[in-house]
Amino acid sequence: MSAFPRFTPLARSLPATVPFVGPEAIERQRHARLTARIGANESGFGPAPSVIAAMTTALSGIWKYNDPENFELKAALARHLGVQPDNLAIGEGIDGLLGQIVRLVIEPGMPVVTSLGGYPTFNFHVAGHGGRLGTVPYDGNDRENLDGLLEAVRREDAPLVYLANPDNPMGSWWDAGRIVDFARALPETTLLVLDEAYGETAPAGTLPDLASLIDRPNILRTRTFSKAYGLAGARVGYAISAPGTAAAFDKIRNHFGMNRVGTAAAEAALNDQAYLQTVIARIAASRATIADIADRAGLKALPSATNFVAIDCGRDATFARAIVDGLMDEAGVFIRMPGAAPLNRCIRVSAGPEAEMQAFAAALPRVLDRLSRA
Amino acid sequence: MSAFPRFTPLARSLPATVPFVGPEAIERQRHARLTARIGANESGFGPAPSVIAAMTTALSGIWKYNDPENFELKAALARHLGVQPDNLAIGEGIDGLLGQIVRLVIEPGMPVVTSLGGYPTFNFHVAGHGGRLGTVPYDGNDRENLDGLLEAVRREDAPLVYLANPDNPMGSWWDAGRIVDFARALPETTLLVLDEAYGETAPAGTLPDLASLIDRPNILRTRTFSKAYGLAGARVGYAISAPGTAAAFDKIRNHFGMNRVGTAAAEAALNDQAYLQTVIARIAASRATIADIADRAGLKALPSATNFVAIDCGRDATFARAIVDGLMDEAGVFIRMPGAAPLNRCIRVSAGPEAEMQAFAAALPRVLDRLSRA
Repeated sequence: MSAFPRFTPLARSLPATVPFVGPEAIERQRHARLTARIGANESGFGPAPSVIAAMTTALSGIWKYNDPENFELKAALARHLGVQPDNLAIGEGIDGLLGQIVRLVIEPGMPVVTSLGGYPTFNFHVAGHGGRLGTVPYDGNDRENLDGLLEAVRREDAPLVYLANPDNPMGSWWDAGRIVDFARALPETTLLVLDEAYGETAPAGTLPDLASLIDRPNILRTRTFSKAYGLAGARVGYAISAPGTAAAFDKIRNHFGMNRVGTAAAEAALNDQAYLQTVIARIAASRATIADIADRAGLKALPSATNFVAIDCGRDATFARAIVDGLMDEAGVFIRMPGAAPLNRCIRVSAGPEAEMQAFAAALPRVLDRLSRA
Repeated sequence: MSAFPRFTPLARSLPATVPFVGPEAIERQRHARLTARIGANESGFGPAPSVIAAMTTALSGIWKYNDPENFELKAALARHLGVQPDNLAIGEGIDGLLGQIVRLVIEPGMPVVTSLGGYPTFNFHVAGHGGRLGTVPYDGNDRENLDGLLEAVRREDAPLVYLANPDNPMGSWWDAGRIVDFARALPETTLLVLDEAYGETAPAGTLPDLASLIDRPNILRTRTFSKAYGLAGARVGYAISAPGTAAAFDKIRNHFGMNRVGTAAAEAALNDQAYLQTVIARIAASRATIADIADRAGLKALPSATNFVAIDCGRDATFARAIVDGLMDEAGVFIRMPGAAPLNRCIRVSAGPEAEMQAFAAALPRVLDRLSRA
């Protein structure tokens, strides 16, 4: 398959890959049909009816490019968060923002620090810009190792470090005080991406006050409408930082990249916090259900501050993989699992509506039973 | 405004800018309200009712991430175009694809060739990757200068050249044969971005057959649903190329970057070619109306193969700018103008529905009259 011969050496060195295989691709590859889509930490509870209504209204304006300054959404977010609009950058999901952040900081060969088994899409972007990834194992409680990350940053003089709080894929979390201590201990020449994609579902006291870190130019906090707000397909994420750091996105981003219906949805979602609270309660109930299903199957659910639960299957990655594949092949139940040891002893199940929970509850014992007799 | 101190030297050197000021920003800055939005080459005729219906249906799935492989849209495009799905790459508008193309090819200091006054967003991305832009003046008929571009590519040994056919901002075009000759004369080590954003509205014989260029790994043709299809706010563009070249996007793109409603809209739009034909006819009629309005005002409309008309105002850029600003300030009529001499003797007016044409027709003579007495 001949390609243009003069792509950059970096581009030529990269594989054509996708950080995650999508459930639609799994259906095509395995000739299976999903009965439960609880693998991508989407929210099957969906967005608020008021958000659907706002999107419906926005459709009539779809012939117009979106405002490249995202003025209205920034204003709405600023009001909601108690920050200024110039503390914000908007992007096509956190994934889009991560790509831009890496591009702004990393030149080929530069060191980047993250956790071993942390968010693969961040790693994808680091590779895409030629960064050299240094990974720190999670601690014994399946939490990202703050002391280890700090030490690695210092040892490598890394200009970029990634931390998710709450964590994906493990669902673990640190309290705000520990996060603030970690962030403030970082060198000013190290940019922290503090990914708070799952912040809405975390216990009180998990997210640092915005005021506690917003004056630090080396800290970017990323958030999204894809998780608790139920808008993964709308592709709206944002970053919160000091104004000078937020402004850097304007140097390189696709200014006209935001879908008009997507930003309308995000604005409407902010305006319906009552619905968000009902979803958060449903997610909490679903987490408990997942833990119960795991327990009855003889597996151990880990505590979670997110919209998913990591379940320790008690053996190795091969076993966990067999469960993931078995659930898909035998019952059309789509889940995922962590990508690195020792996290990959676990499977990861997203919270979801009752029907999805029932499908998982029915399939898991059957798959385990078959595996025990294999 | 303090920023993170360790952004790359390239990032630090770049301004925080936007390639185009959006009409919403103009409204905010000038405290004016638009009465006619005919400046961004959007389609006020909108998408098909069948497309609105498809988007409405898609809203219920907005809680799901989009298929990162864009399998269904690629299949639909492949059927429509008579190519294979692996000849295609999907992105967040042509703008998004242009950023990726530049990133795949350009390292700091490398030469890039385009036309003087050509598409600013391409230039934005070249600057964003540190490319050194070489520009070739348009020819005496306000067409991109094919011989000049070829000569500049050879002289500079440029790995990347941009050509829009039909052209934006002038609306001019070359016939397919001349484009094919140009493309085939390029060195194999020069990637041609052949931007066909306005292809649907061009006369027959303007777009080269896909078969004539698709086997060349150094040619990428970009197209969009933003113009004739009336879906600028949906952010769906695509590139057509040899498979190896198309696959390169998978190395770096934001795989989960496409809005789910947007790709549903694109698929539906392809399925309603009858509506597209009615829009193309309305655009042609609107172009004639714009030419008539210009003529009655003593200005000269240039021939156009696009959904807009460049109008030669017969004087300098200051005069053209005064018309653009006057139309906005006095009548809320949003148009744009080219950014470089000698093109900037012109104003650029997008085709649009009757009400917008009437607003322009009413305002233009008033503005010209005031300017003649100033």
